[in-house]
Amino acid sequence: MKRAIVLLSGGLDSTVTLAYAISKGYEVIPLTFVYGQKHQRELKSAREVVEYYKLRNHVIFNLESKIFSSSALVSSSLQIPEKKSTDEIGGGIPSTYVPARNIIFLSIAAGLCETEMADAIFIGANAVDFSGYPDCRPEFFDAFRKVLEVGTKRGVEGKPPELETPILLLTKAEIVKLGKSLGAPLHLTWSCYRGTEKACGRCDSCLLRLKGFREAGFEDEIEYEVKK
Amino acid sequence: MKRAIVLLSGGLDSTVTLAYAISKGYEVIPLTFVYGQKHQRELKSAREVVEYYKLRNHVIFNLESKIFSSSALVSSSLQIPEKKSTDEIGGGIPSTYVPARNIIFLSIAAGLCETEMADAIFIGANAVDFSGYPDCRPEFFDAFRKVLEVGTKRGVEGKPPELETPILLLTKAEIVKLGKSLGAPLHLTWSCYRGTEKACGRCDSCLLRLKGFREAGFEDEIEYEVKK
Repeated sequence: MKRAIVLLSGGLDSTVTLAYAISKGYEVIPLTFVYGQKHQRELKSAREVVEYYKLRNHVIFNLESKIFSSSALVSSSLQIPEKKSTDEIGGGIPSTYVPARNIIFLSIAAGLCETEMADAIFIGANAVDFSGYPDCRPEFFDAFRKVLEVGTKRGVEGKPPELETPILLLTKAEIVKLGKSLGAPLHLTWSCYRGTEKACGRCDSCLLRLKGFREAGFEDEIEYEVKK
Repeated sequence: MKRAIVLLSGGLDSTVTLAYAISKGYEVIPLTFVYGQKHQRELKSAREVVEYYKLRNHVIFNLESKIFSSSALVSSSLQIPEKKSTDEIGGGIPSTYVPARNIIFLSIAAGLCETEMADAIFIGANAVDFSGYPDCRPEFFDAFRKVLEVGTKRGVEGKPPELETPILLLTKAEIVKLGKSLGAPLHLTWSCYRGTEKACGRCDSCLLRLKGFREAGFEDEIEYEVKK
């Protein structure tokens, strides 16, 4: 059976990616990072998704470090930006950019591939809605494929792990539709940048998620403080 | 003043690399990883080297994780191989290979470059004596340069950090000579795979170091149990 490391944050995108990897017949090892996010709500969702699929071997990797502190997602001195609508999103690299996050996540996934003899890494990165992140772009993933090919033991032995980005070029609506078609537990996922009991409905991430569900023609079953 | 992140293990190679970066006029931020090595002797050396150069901002990054456990350098169930001479070294990927280590180290250095606005990363990797490690080869560093170019904020903004590998193609004797010419504190460095009070003089790393000093025509001032 083919084996895959799947990066799982507990958000919508990574959960749909996990569902996709399972649907392709992979034995899945979910890999979740704790990196000083302002809230642990996402981690709770990740655990619930893992439980939903009855997966064992959930790897939770602790990366708490000051190197991430320049991002609004982890710094208590930077405010997460609020937008009135998704039209305001975009233009430059957002303050929620976490320095080299995907580079670091994928490098640790590469290490795990070596120890677990995995055949693939799945990452739910998306270049459509958040083209502002440098490490969410197709050219970055192509560059990292080369690293896996020449920089790992499995690569040198002729079996480099595949780097799969199944939702990279999908819109949020398409991701919701894919998730629904795969029976992914979208009701367990968390996208809000805040960690309150209900999703705020006002941050970039909430706005994009709500727009995605609306356009896909599905109801978002999680609770919101405000639903625009 | 140009600023550089320098990976510093406390060994000979990384210390010479640090001395080289300083000689090139960089303001240096040393980055040391704790990743479940069997011993902390190297870390002690790293601290002493940092103190020798009166550097502030020594970043010590804790990466203790089971993903590294398949390497003889960190696993208590695997024995570090003993060789009779350096002629026996080579042929295949050694059991001391730490899965994706340099990929992970460089990715975290990339993150630190973003937060510290650094212009370069220096790594004391060497492809001559240990060509068995996939992530010590020139083609790996070329692939990682591309990652820095397309996957970081500074790269996208047209200022990708340089990835400097000044000793990549030097023999151990040439590294010793370079270190001596730069006044690097080689007597503070530690190369032995074991963490005993004196270097063992029998592991791959000790044998290569001793051979390097001998060929360079310098006395190795650290203490050995056995000096072949």
